[in-house]
Amino acid sequence: MEVQDEINFQEKIKWVQDTMFVLGGKWKLAIIIAMYHGNKRFNDISISIPTITNRVLSKELKHLEENLLIKRVVVSDYPIKVEYRLTEYCYTISEVLIAMENWGKQHREKIKKKE
Amino acid sequence: MEVQDEINFQEKIKWVQDTMFVLGGKWKLAIIIAMYHGNKRFNDISISIPTITNRVLSKELKHLEENLLIKRVVVSDYPIKVEYRLTEYCYTISEVLIAMENWGKQHREKIKKKE
Repeated sequence: MEVQDEINFQEKIKWVQDTMFVLGGKWKLAIIIAMYHGNKRFNDISISIPTITNRVLSKELKHLEENLLIKRVVVSDYPIKVEYRLTEYCYTISEVLIAMENWGKQHREKIKKKE
Repeated sequence: MEVQDEINFQEKIKWVQDTMFVLGGKWKLAIIIAMYHGNKRFNDISISIPTITNRVLSKELKHLEENLLIKRVVVSDYPIKVEYRLTEYCYTISEVLIAMENWGKQHREKIKKKE
């Protein structure tokens, strides 16, 4: 292998690991999908994602906010009312999201056939 | 939201979670990238991925094999020599992989600007 090739592939590993750090795990993309489908309040997001706990949801929302994918908006002061919104930047992940949806869909069929 | 919409988005969450289960975490895609770039032996893969431990690599190779993405091939009996090879099926993840590489690359720049 050429030296340039070697560098490129180490870089690729870093990029993919960065993406995994930001979007990886069981819940982050699920939250983004739920929000994309109209769920904006903490409780609505929580209910729309089977088996997520409030503690985990809270942690994941913070992580997504730190990575500029969602924003927390106080829409009313009294009583306090908070909404979470996808940022414009969040739409840059659509290619990743669609590729993962498609692959997951066909993989389920593939594994079924194997069994 | 329409009922059909609701079903579709719950399905989407499942597909994405399936993909994350198979490809998620820090190492699985790194291993596939390293193998794609010519590393076939356990030790070569290990050396090519900074900071992965042998214990983790061994576990991840098994997981990738169970999910039909790689195969373990005994290429010589004595002394025993094992190689890991990407399956044809593994190439179906290229869309996911390329999308994640691209996104990770631009996200690093984005976060740099923020800081």
